Amino acid sequence: MTVSSITEKLLAAKKAAGLSFADLEAKIGCDEVWIASVFYRQASASVEEAAKIIEALGADASLIEALTDFPVKGGLDPVIPTDPLIYRFYEIMQVYGMPMKAVIHEKFGDGIMSAIDFTLDIEKVEDPKGDRVKVIMNGKFLPYKKW
Amino acid sequence: MTVSSITEKLLAAKKAAGLSFADLEAKIGCDEVWIASVFYRQASASVEEAAKIIEALGADASLIEALTDFPVKGGLDPVIPTDPLIYRFYEIMQVYGMPMKAVIHEKFGDGIMSAIDFTLDIEKVEDPKGDRVKVIMNGKFLPYKKW
Amino acid sequence: MTVSSITEKLLAAKKAAGLSFADLEAKIGCDEVWIASVFYRQASASVEEAAKIIEALGADASLIEALTDFPVKGGLDPVIPTDPLIYRFYEIMQVYGMPMKAVIHEKFGDGIMSAIDFTLDIEKVEDPKGDRVKVIMNGKFLPYKKW
Amino acid sequence: MTVSSITEKLLAAKKAAGLSFADLEAKIGCDEVWIASVFYRQASASVEEAAKIIEALGADASLIEALTDFPVKGGLDPVIPTDPLIYRFYEIMQVYGMPMKAVIHEKFGDGIMSAIDFTLDIEKVEDPKGDRVKVIMNGKFLPYKKW
Amino acid sequence: MTVSSITEKLLAAKKAAGLSFADLEAKIGCDEVWIASVFYRQASASVEEAAKIIEALGADASLIEALTDFPVKGGLDPVIPTDPLIYRFYEIMQVYGMPMKAVIHEKFGDGIMSAIDFTLDIEKVEDPKGDRVKVIMNGKFLPYKKW
Amino acid sequence: MTVSSITEKLLAAKKAAGLSFADLEAKIGCDEVWIASVFYRQASASVEEAAKIIEALGADASLIEALTDFPVKGGLDPVIPTDPLIYRFYEIMQVYGMPMKAVIHEKFGDGIMSAIDFTLDIEKVEDPKGDRVKVIMNGKFLPYKKW
Amino acid sequence: MTVSSITEKLLAAKKAAGLSFADLEAKIGCDEVWIASVFYRQASASVEEAAKIIEALGADASLIEALTDFPVKGGLDPVIPTDPLIYRFYEIMQVYGMPMKAVIHEKFGDGIMSAIDFTLDIEKVEDPKGDRVKVIMNGKFLPYKKW
Amino acid sequence: MTVSSITEKLLAAKKAAGLSFADLEAKIGCDEVWIASVFYRQASASVEEAAKIIEALGADASLIEALTDFPVKGGLDPVIPTDPLIYRFYEIMQVYGMPMKAVIHEKFGDGIMSAIDFTLDIEKVEDPKGDRVKVIMNGKFLPYKKW
Amino acid sequence: MTVSSITEKLLAAKKAAGLSFADLEAKIGCDEVWIASVFYRQASASVEEAAKIIEALGADASLIEALTDFPVKGGLDPVIPTDPLIYRFYEIMQVYGMPMKAVIHEKFGDGIMSAIDFTLDIEKVEDPKGDRVKVIMNGKFLPYKKW
Amino acid sequence: MTVSSITEKLLAAKKAAGLSFADLEAKIGCDEVWIASVFYRQASASVEEAAKIIEALGADASLIEALTDFPVKGGLDPVIPTDPLIYRFYEIMQVYGMPMKAVIHEKFGDGIMSAIDFTLDIEKVEDPKGDRVKVIMNGKFLPYKKW
Repeated sequence: MTVSSITEKLLAAKKAAGLSFADLEAKIGCDEVWIASVFYRQASASVEEAAKIIEALGADASLIEALTDFPVKGGLDPVIPTDPLIYRFYEIMQVYGMPMKAVIHEKFGDGIMSAIDFTLDIEKVEDPKGDRVKVIMNGKFLPYKKW
Repeated sequence: MTVSSITEKLLAAKKAAGLSFADLEAKIGCDEVWIASVFYRQASASVEEAAKIIEALGADASLIEALTDFPVKGGLDPVIPTDPLIYRFYEIMQVYGMPMKAVIHEKFGDGIMSAIDFTLDIEKVEDPKGDRVKVIMNGKFLPYKKW
Repeated sequence: MTVSSITEKLLAAKKAAGLSFADLEAKIGCDEVWIASVFYRQASASVEEAAKIIEALGADASLIEALTDFPVKGGLDPVIPTDPLIYRFYEIMQVYGMPMKAVIHEKFGDGIMSAIDFTLDIEKVEDPKGDRVKVIMNGKFLPYKKW
Repeated sequence: MTVSSITEKLLAAKKAAGLSFADLEAKIGCDEVWIASVFYRQASASVEEAAKIIEALGADASLIEALTDFPVKGGLDPVIPTDPLIYRFYEIMQVYGMPMKAVIHEKFGDGIMSAIDFTLDIEKVEDPKGDRVKVIMNGKFLPYKKW
Repeated sequence: MTVSSITEKLLAAKKAAGLSFADLEAKIGCDEVWIASVFYRQASASVEEAAKIIEALGADASLIEALTDFPVKGGLDPVIPTDPLIYRFYEIMQVYGMPMKAVIHEKFGDGIMSAIDFTLDIEKVEDPKGDRVKVIMNGKFLPYKKW
Repeated sequence: MTVSSITEKLLAAKKAAGLSFADLEAKIGCDEVWIASVFYRQASASVEEAAKIIEALGADASLIEALTDFPVKGGLDPVIPTDPLIYRFYEIMQVYGMPMKAVIHEKFGDGIMSAIDFTLDIEKVEDPKGDRVKVIMNGKFLPYKKW
Repeated sequence: MTVSSITEKLLAAKKAAGLSFADLEAKIGCDEVWIASVFYRQASASVEEAAKIIEALGADASLIEALTDFPVKGGLDPVIPTDPLIYRFYEIMQVYGMPMKAVIHEKFGDGIMSAIDFTLDIEKVEDPKGDRVKVIMNGKFLPYKKW
Repeated sequence: MTVSSITEKLLAAKKAAGLSFADLEAKIGCDEVWIASVFYRQASASVEEAAKIIEALGADASLIEALTDFPVKGGLDPVIPTDPLIYRFYEIMQVYGMPMKAVIHEKFGDGIMSAIDFTLDIEKVEDPKGDRVKVIMNGKFLPYKKW
Repeated sequence: MTVSSITEKLLAAKKAAGLSFADLEAKIGCDEVWIASVFYRQASASVEEAAKIIEALGADASLIEALTDFPVKGGLDPVIPTDPLIYRFYEIMQVYGMPMKAVIHEKFGDGIMSAIDFTLDIEKVEDPKGDRVKVIMNGKFLPYKKW
Repeated sequence: MTVSSITEKLLAAKKAAGLSFADLEAKIGCDEVWIASVFYRQASASVEEAAKIIEALGADASLIEALTDFPVKGGLDPVIPTDPLIYRFYEIMQVYGMPMKAVIHEKFGDGIMSAIDFTLDIEKVEDPKGDRVKVIMNGKFLPYKKW
């Protein structure tokens, strides 16, 4: 993923302000993952949301407008990601994709989980044997329309 | 994903027995997604687990041994999946992959979420505006070793 | 697209019965494109719909159950289709994809046209300079959720 | 799709002028999708059309000539588009491509829908359950010549 | 290109009959390249044309119907052909593609040469320094429609 | 195809001089397609030819030497071209490649049409039903050597 | 490279006869590499050559005709070969391709080495430090034609 | 192959000095192909060799050190080369790769020809029917170790 | 990796005999990884070695000859492996490939580690915090030849 | 692998300081391969480790912070590496990947070798027949979790 100059400016401002995405969540009232998506230009903000983000960062107000543009989304550079953290999610799909499909169809019928009417949360689960990453995806079920 | 003849036999036996994966979870005491992974030859079972699955299905005992083999895992046929349900998980990675990476690193440091010491649950969340699919991934955080 | 044996049987029965997809639309009360999608195992039918299709074709009732399975969808063999008729739709996306994205965002905001809550109709427009193919796609607009 | 500097200038002028593509349609008398195609350098304009577009935008007249060049068309960067809005059209082809081919052949014989003698309109259909995107493609049927 | 069993039967019948494609051209009154396209299931014949071909070959009449089906066209197995004869045409496009585009646009304006309203002839030009292959492509110019 | 700065200078000079490739053919005595190939750095010119081209364009004499270099040829950016005009030639190969191979082998034996000892001409054939593009390829037949 | 059943029969006959390709060279009077190319269906033989090969092998005369067909050549399965022996030749091209191009152009001008009017010999050079493989390629230089 | 700025400087110096690679071979005492490999940064030179090359070219001594670095080798841009001269060597491997493998194994046993302990020479063979390019590859045979 | 029928027979015989690869190492006197390579048809055995393997397995003697053939090596089906165990070795190369190259060049000069004069051992290192897999690769350093 | 400007600065400082990675290992107390991984931005250092590295190099202290960022890892440019040294490790996986999988599963059960809780050492083994490269990989075995 080639990171745009807007992303670079936002990340630099965040570093200079000494804020984590969790801090921004507390200040802005939106989830940290969604805020990070705005940073990486994968989600667009309203003018109000953009203004709050820029103010929290102490960044230049001229960036507000850019955050409201509708981005060309996606675009991990290699079609199969090579970063080990991101690759694991690709591998999960390779290994558990068909089982998930079978279980979702059984529970809901023919359709999909929306990736648009969708939220994603990341939690840290402390564990003496090693902390765990918990990723919660929540998407509306969309049944296939017949016509 | 080309489905092996073992998978076809298991799915046929399950259909004949009129059982859902949730029914199998109740009978066998393992999660329905994991059981579906055994069906699709993405996970291996112990002899005891395999015997329980085969018994619950009323399938031929000669299948038990096959379920204990260590499978060559993965293998969605096209490198980018075309089935719309599975593709959405690839799209989530394309759109939210870098934001997730940023948040996980911020919470945990440099490392990854394991896809091996890992569980995956699927829940149906009833909602008057349309039911929702909830996918909960839970993997151990593995910090990069330095040496 | 490798055509399954079920598809072959359905197409053979339709040929033997001398029926067009438009004839099936008239008999079954569903759109001809959707019926063709069931033939090609890209859409699943309810038991009632499957029974009507099989009856209209005079085909073997044992096929009914297969039409109700939730198929692994997609799967044009080469990732870029080589059949000239299908390729033109890929080309339209190459040439008009970004302009369409710009206009849809302008009219609706940040989101997508659903390909699930979606219908597709094909009409023949007679024209003395050469008949025209009219393809009407109609999908629900899904705005990106923020959280 | 890497956007050329000409496209960037046109989009900036349009933003500065506070005009939508629909506004440009009203001023210029061409369809908004076609005008957007000229912006993205996927269609070439005549000198008159280019002049009208530049005048409507209040942009620099030196851009007129560039809009009349015959562009190298196409070129979504990854061969399979990753932007979710554009991907859905690729998915429609994966899922409904063969059924469309079957229905078009049945209605017209062996041939294709032209993507050159072709128009594309986008309409917003208001709906209390959620507005809908209507895409109307209209291309001349071209029968395969025999010789 | 995986050759279908129909193609194999036609080629075997042609070999048995000791006929060249040029002989078939003489008997049937269609061009040899088009006839070869029917053999390779890249073009569909009318019932009359199919009957003439089958009769000329002395082949089984049951093949007639198959030749009238609308084939899924294209499909050289590797996306870049490896057979040296076919590759040369790919190379010509790599080397002369942009120059051809420049010259065609200059002569005709913005548009394409149709590959559907199109004929292709192959002639042998005798030459004491080595015979030459002459390939004549003739396609209707299709100007881009504006709307 | 990324166009080099030399190509850009040549095309700009040609535009400034108001010359078509056909005009250059008349002035220089070489075919317009070959001249366009020199422009796009797919063919190398002798010093004399390069000097004539530069003189006809009224371009800077310092460009002469560059035109005599042996270029790295080929290189349409995506392996399957996306520009519709160039794609049609790829499609022709997909659809008619095997039939052409069959007919050429039948006429000439085992070998290929040279793409090196090769000429390519483009003619405009006026036609009341729409002008036609005629492309004439002429390459030496090269029989496979046995040893 | 999927090996055809003809190739399998030839290799089995050769094994049964206890002959090496060098033995066949001595019996038939053609080079062992070319004979191996006929075995792998990459070169076609005349009827006389095919008869000699079949006779030397003591194989079934019904194979003679197959060896005279003009094969679809090429087709190493993965586009980049994975067999280590064959890969080394790909690597040589990756490493020495541009240097070879520079030297050949300097010695011959703009053109190529033919791979059709071409021979290839393999010699064993005994060496106390380890025997060496000597591969001698000899192809006609083909200068680019100008027109 | 993107040519580095070091390569460009070396090629410019060579052109300015009016030297061919064969001239450099005579001056430096290494083979012209190997010298060209140093130019294209596919081989590293010792300090002495680098100094001789730079002196022969009359180039800047500051380049000496760069020529001794161990380069990242390989890297023809498209995985299948499109330059016709280089492609022919890829085609040779496609057509003659398996036959070469068969003959080398028969002469040497299971192993490979080294591409590291390897030399490559290019000779011009004058021939009244057209000069020929002779490429001589000579690599140590490496038998597979068993353990 | 599509497993050949020979591999299937060997694996079945091994299972029936209740032997591990480590048991075979003890019986045959070759390393277990090399023996597994013979099973998967990636290494060829001498007649004596093949006979010992077959005898140890109690398998059919007719398999001996097949194990001595020189296999077409390599061939993990997808070019990037999807099985998680094998993928990790690909990831190691993605992450540590350039660092390894830097260190090997610094220790040895310009050259490579042979993958032919090469051994590979796998050891189990018991560890109370979780056992560890130790993979020891040992290949001859091959310096690049200059000529 | 495109090398970032940070890597270039580090490599230049190391060259200027006349230090090998082995020298840095002695000074810093971390393994040379891991240090090289930090140089190539594949591993992140703590502030203390980064400070030691920068001090040992005599490089600019402003680089310290950059070395502590969590990098986007991986990214050999072509998905199959073309540098011969790195390619050999890919080939080892192609040839020995399945045998390694079989032996690891036999010794450990169903699971993988971690590439995160992982170390990699490179040793030079002197040998009169040619020095050998020894690569020791050591990763924690991770058994597949069942749930």
